[in-house]
Amino acid sequence: MFGRTYYCGEVTEQHIGESITLKGWVQKRRDLGGLIFIDLRDRTGIVQIVFNPDISAEALAIAEKIRSEYVLDVKGTVVARDASTVNENLKTGKIEIKVDQVTIINEAKTPPFMIENKTEVAEDVRLKYRYLDLRRPVMYETFKMRHDVTKTIRRFLDEEGFLDVETPILTKSTPEGARDYLVPSRVHPGEFYALPQSPQIFKQLLMVSGFDKYYQIARCFRDEDLRADRQPEFTQIDIETSFYSQEDIMDMTEKMMVRLMKDVKGIDISTPLPRLTYDEAMSRYGSDKPDTRFEMELVDLSEIVKESGFKVFSAAVTNGGQVKAINVKGGATKYSRKDIDGLTEFVSRYGAKGLAWLKVEEDGLKGPIAKFFSEEEQQQFKSILESSTGDLLLFVSDKTSVVADALGALRLKLGKELGLIDESKFNFLWVTDWPLLEYDEEEGRYYAAHHPFTMPFREDIEKLESDPKNVKAQAYDLVLNGYELGGGSLRIFERDIQEKMFKVLGFTEEQAREQFGFLLDAFEYGTPPHGGIALGLDRIVMLLSGRTNLRDTIAFPKTASASCLLTEAPGEVSELQLQDLHLSLNLKEK
Amino acid sequence: MFGRTYYCGEVTEQHIGESITLKGWVQKRRDLGGLIFIDLRDRTGIVQIVFNPDISAEALAIAEKIRSEYVLDVKGTVVARDASTVNENLKTGKIEIKVDQVTIINEAKTPPFMIENKTEVAEDVRLKYRYLDLRRPVMYETFKMRHDVTKTIRRFLDEEGFLDVETPILTKSTPEGARDYLVPSRVHPGEFYALPQSPQIFKQLLMVSGFDKYYQIARCFRDEDLRADRQPEFTQIDIETSFYSQEDIMDMTEKMMVRLMKDVKGIDISTPLPRLTYDEAMSRYGSDKPDTRFEMELVDLSEIVKESGFKVFSAAVTNGGQVKAINVKGGATKYSRKDIDGLTEFVSRYGAKGLAWLKVEEDGLKGPIAKFFSEEEQQQFKSILESSTGDLLLFVSDKTSVVADALGALRLKLGKELGLIDESKFNFLWVTDWPLLEYDEEEGRYYAAHHPFTMPFREDIEKLESDPKNVKAQAYDLVLNGYELGGGSLRIFERDIQEKMFKVLGFTEEQAREQFGFLLDAFEYGTPPHGGIALGLDRIVMLLSGRTNLRDTIAFPKTASASCLLTEAPGEVSELQLQDLHLSLNLKEK
Repeated sequence: MFGRTYYCGEVTEQHIGESITLKGWVQKRRDLGGLIFIDLRDRTGIVQIVFNPDISAEALAIAEKIRSEYVLDVKGTVVARDASTVNENLKTGKIEIKVDQVTIINEAKTPPFMIENKTEVAEDVRLKYRYLDLRRPVMYETFKMRHDVTKTIRRFLDEEGFLDVETPILTKSTPEGARDYLVPSRVHPGEFYALPQSPQIFKQLLMVSGFDKYYQIARCFRDEDLRADRQPEFTQIDIETSFYSQEDIMDMTEKMMVRLMKDVKGIDISTPLPRLTYDEAMSRYGSDKPDTRFEMELVDLSEIVKESGFKVFSAAVTNGGQVKAINVKGGATKYSRKDIDGLTEFVSRYGAKGLAWLKVEEDGLKGPIAKFFSEEEQQQFKSILESSTGDLLLFVSDKTSVVADALGALRLKLGKELGLIDESKFNFLWVTDWPLLEYDEEEGRYYAAHHPFTMPFREDIEKLESDPKNVKAQAYDLVLNGYELGGGSLRIFERDIQEKMFKVLGFTEEQAREQFGFLLDAFEYGTPPHGGIALGLDRIVMLLSGRTNLRDTIAFPKTASASCLLTEAPGEVSELQLQDLHLSLNLKEK
Repeated sequence: MFGRTYYCGEVTEQHIGESITLKGWVQKRRDLGGLIFIDLRDRTGIVQIVFNPDISAEALAIAEKIRSEYVLDVKGTVVARDASTVNENLKTGKIEIKVDQVTIINEAKTPPFMIENKTEVAEDVRLKYRYLDLRRPVMYETFKMRHDVTKTIRRFLDEEGFLDVETPILTKSTPEGARDYLVPSRVHPGEFYALPQSPQIFKQLLMVSGFDKYYQIARCFRDEDLRADRQPEFTQIDIETSFYSQEDIMDMTEKMMVRLMKDVKGIDISTPLPRLTYDEAMSRYGSDKPDTRFEMELVDLSEIVKESGFKVFSAAVTNGGQVKAINVKGGATKYSRKDIDGLTEFVSRYGAKGLAWLKVEEDGLKGPIAKFFSEEEQQQFKSILESSTGDLLLFVSDKTSVVADALGALRLKLGKELGLIDESKFNFLWVTDWPLLEYDEEEGRYYAAHHPFTMPFREDIEKLESDPKNVKAQAYDLVLNGYELGGGSLRIFERDIQEKMFKVLGFTEEQAREQFGFLLDAFEYGTPPHGGIALGLDRIVMLLSGRTNLRDTIAFPKTASASCLLTEAPGEVSELQLQDLHLSLNLKEK
C-alpha cells in the first residue's frame, strides 16, 4: 500500500510518461462518456486522475464506488491532456493520470461542508469538524506560513547568538495582571500551580544566570473574558538580552522583522522603522497603536477655539480638555446629515458627548456651528486642517482621553469605509516612552502599564513616589497596521528600585517578599542590566497571511467562551479525580 | 555603559593591541605586587583583566572594592602575557586585558556556593539558587547543547517536509494512562481542562486533516509519583506522518539520529540500526531497553536442567518457568561468597528467590550446587555460556518475568561495577513487535501497552478478543545505551478496529463515545493510514551531554515532590481565586 512517488500538486509536464503512485483525497468525481475523472487532493494541491475501461476495467469498477473525501492509493501513468482540456489555473493542469490500479484506503461519509477555500459555513461547525476545516487549502497555507514564520525567526535568533530555553508551564501564581489559570497539586494538598501569562520572571532569571541572550517561542495563558482577538492560550516570540540598550533591542527586532518580511512575504521593508512617542501617537492618531497606512490625523484646535463664541468648545478647553478635529477629504458630499448622526452615535460609544461638523464649500464653512466662529477662526480651521472644498471636518471636544479615543476610533472607521487603507502595505512603527503606571480610578491605585519589572527613565526614578503619573518607562511597542505586535522594555535590575516599584504598586513589604522574594534575592547576586521584547506569534501570522480571525492561525483554537468544540473541553471529571486533588465543587446553580 | 566589543572567552592573541569593551562577572580576584588581577567571566569563558596603577589609579581604586560575582563593564587594551604566565589550559590564556576604565554595574553578595563546574553542593541548594547554579559553565554548555539538539532536529524535519504545528495545552481529560493535571474553568463551573500527556490525539487529527507530516517539540505533563528520571512536565520530539510504513518511519528516525549525532557530537553512527524484537530483547537481556554496550547476555539453560538432579531448577522448568544464567567473565576471583550474598540480596528485590552460582576452575565447576549436575550437564553449562577458567556463572530460576527482571538488572549492575561499559559508545537499537496489551492482575483487565490508538499486526486483529495477550503491535521503541529514547507505532485508522480496541480495554460503547467520540467520528471522514514516533528531548540531551540527572537538562526543574524550590510553586491561592473557580478545598489534615 505504501510508496508514494509524488505529491499530487507536484506532477507536471516533466513527468509525462512516468509511472507514478499517488495518495490523496477525492476532491470531486465526474463521470463523462464512460470515463471517470477524479480530482485527487493532498496538501500540495490537486491532480486529475482518469479511469478508462481500456486501461483497467477493474479500476473503473472501483472508481464507481468512490465518493468525495475517500482516501485513495493510485498507480498510473502521467499523460498530457488534450489541448482542449488543459486547465491553466492549475499547476498540474497540463497533465492527467491514466489510472492502472486504485485502492480505496478508507471511505468517507459525506462531510458536513465542502472542502473549499471559500466557505459560508458557520464557524461553530468548522470548529466542531476542525479536522475537515483544516483540509481547506487556505487553512493549510496559513499553517505552512506559521511554520515558515517560526523557522525564520528561529534561524535569525540562532545566528544572533540567542539560546532557545524552555521555561516552566507549571509555575507560581502572581497577583499582578490578568487572571491566572490554576492547576491543583495532588502531592501538596490545597496548593496550586499557575500557568504562566508570560515567561517574564524566568527569562529575567536566565539573565541573572549570564545566559546573555535568550529566546523561546513560548505558550502563554490568560484566563480573561475573551474577545475576538484573544485566546486562553497564545504563543509569543519571547526574547531577553543582557547588556543591550533600548536601541540595541529595537535594532535587533527591526533586523528580525526585515528578515521575516523578506523570507516569508518577499517584501523589503526599510529601516529604521518610524517611531512615535506614546504622547505623539495619542495626540496625532488617538491611539497607542496607530494604523499609519492612511493619514487623517487628529488636529488640535484648542488654541484657536479657546476664546471662541462656541461655548461647548471654549468650555472644554477651559476645563482642561481639548478640541480636536479630523479632515475627511472629499467627505462633504459623501456624508449626509443622517450619516453624520450615525457617526455621532459611534463616537458616543467612546464617551464623546457629541460630534460637531463643518463642510468646506466654495463660499466658506457650512454647518450648524459655523455661525459661532469668526471669519478668522474659520480661516484658521481650514488652514490648520489643510482642507479644501468638498472636505468634511469632524470635531470632538472633551477631556483629552475621550477626544483621543473617540476621534481615534472614528478615524479608523472612516479610513476603512472610505477605502483609504492600502491593504498591500505593511506599516511597521515603534511607539516609545510609555507611561510606567496607570491609575485605576475605581480601585484608587496605580497599576503597572506593562508589568512591574519595567525600568523607569533614570531621571524619573525620583518621581516614583512624588509624581507617579508622569514617570515614563523605557518601554517600546511594535505596531503593524494598527495592531500591537508586541512590546518590551528594559527591566529593573537593582533591588532598591524594584522594591520602590512594588511599593508604588501597593504591595506591602511582606507581600512583595512573599510573591517575588526570590527575584529580589536574585538581584543581589550580580544581576546584569537586561531587557527584551515579546511579540505575538498568532497575530503576526494573522497579519502576514491576510486573515482577519486569530482562530484561523491556531490549529485547535478555543471559542469566545474558552471551549474546544471538537474535543468538548473543558469537561466534567470524576469524583475520584477531585478527591485526589483535595477539592470539592462549589456550585451554586448550574 | 553599553557597547560590548567581544565576549570574554573570545579574546585571543589576534586581538593584541586592540582597545576593547567587555561585560562580565568576577570569577575571582587576586592582588599581587600592587596589581589586581581579575578573572572576568561570561557565557563564553574567562579572560584575565589586570589593574595597574601605572595605567589607571582610578580603575585600581575601584578594583579594590570588587568582589566575586560583581558585574563589571571594562575598557582596556589586549596585551600578550609574559611567557611565564601563559595559561595553556585557557583559550584566552596567552593574553590579558590592561584595564583603562572600569564600572561596577552591579554588586553581589557572597554566593551560597562557588560558581565552578565541580560542585559538592546539595541539589536542594542548587535548585533554590538556580540562577547561580546556571552560571556554572557546565550548565550553560548543557543548555547550549539542548539548543543545538532542537535546532538540528528542526532543520532536519523541515528539510523532510514536516510542518511544525502547535497543539493545545488546555485540553480534555482522558481516563487512559497516567494521571492528568487538571485546570478548573472559571467560565464553565465544575468543568476542567486537562494538560496533555502527549499531543497524540491532535497529531492524529492533523493526519485526518491531510497535513501529512507533522512535528512539534511539545511540552507534555504527567502527574505521576516522580522518580529520579521523571519530571511533571517534560518535552518530546513529537512526529506523525501519513502513508508511511513502519519501515519508512524507522528509516526517517534513523536519518534524524545520524544527523543529530553528527552535528551535535561529531560522531558517525552507522545505519540501519540494530533491531531486536521485544521477545528477543527480553530473552537475551532481560530488558525491553537493553544496554548493548557490553555482552553478558542471558543464556537459557532450561532445556539442559529440566531433568537435572537439582530440584530447584527442574521444578522451575516443570512449572512453566525458566532457568537462565549469565557469565561474569573473570568474576570467580573478584566475587567472594560474601559478595555473592550481596548479589543474592540484589536479585531478591526483583522477586528472585535465590541466586545460584558456579565458579569455573581449572578442574571443573565449583560451588554448592555443583554436585547436583552431571559431568555432561556441567560441560553443557560451560559450553553454552562460553565460559573459561576464572569465570563466575550466576543462575536464576523462576517464572519467565522474574528471571528476566532479576538477571537483566544484575547484568546491568555487574556491567557497571566491572567497568565493562565503554562510556564513549552510543549504542542505538530498535525494539520492535511489542505486545499490544498488558494484563493487570490486580484489576483483572487489559491495558494498552503503549496507548489505545496503536495498530495491532493485521494478522492478529482476529485474536483481539479471543487471545488478547498474544496480539502484537506495530510498535517500535528507540533505545540508547539502556535508556528508552522514545517510541512510536502505526495507528488504528479504521473506526471498527478502534471500537474493538476500546472494547478490549473495557470501555463500554457509551464511555468510548463520550471520551473519544470525536476521534471515532473523524475516522469516518476519510482518514489516511498514519503513524509516528515521540522521543524524549530531556533524555536525549542528558545522554548526549553525558549528564546523569534529568534535572540538569531542564532550566527550572521540579523536585521529586513536584515542587519548584526557586519560586516555591505550587503555593496557596486566595479564597477569592477559589470562589472564581467554583471550588472549595477539601483538606483532611495538613
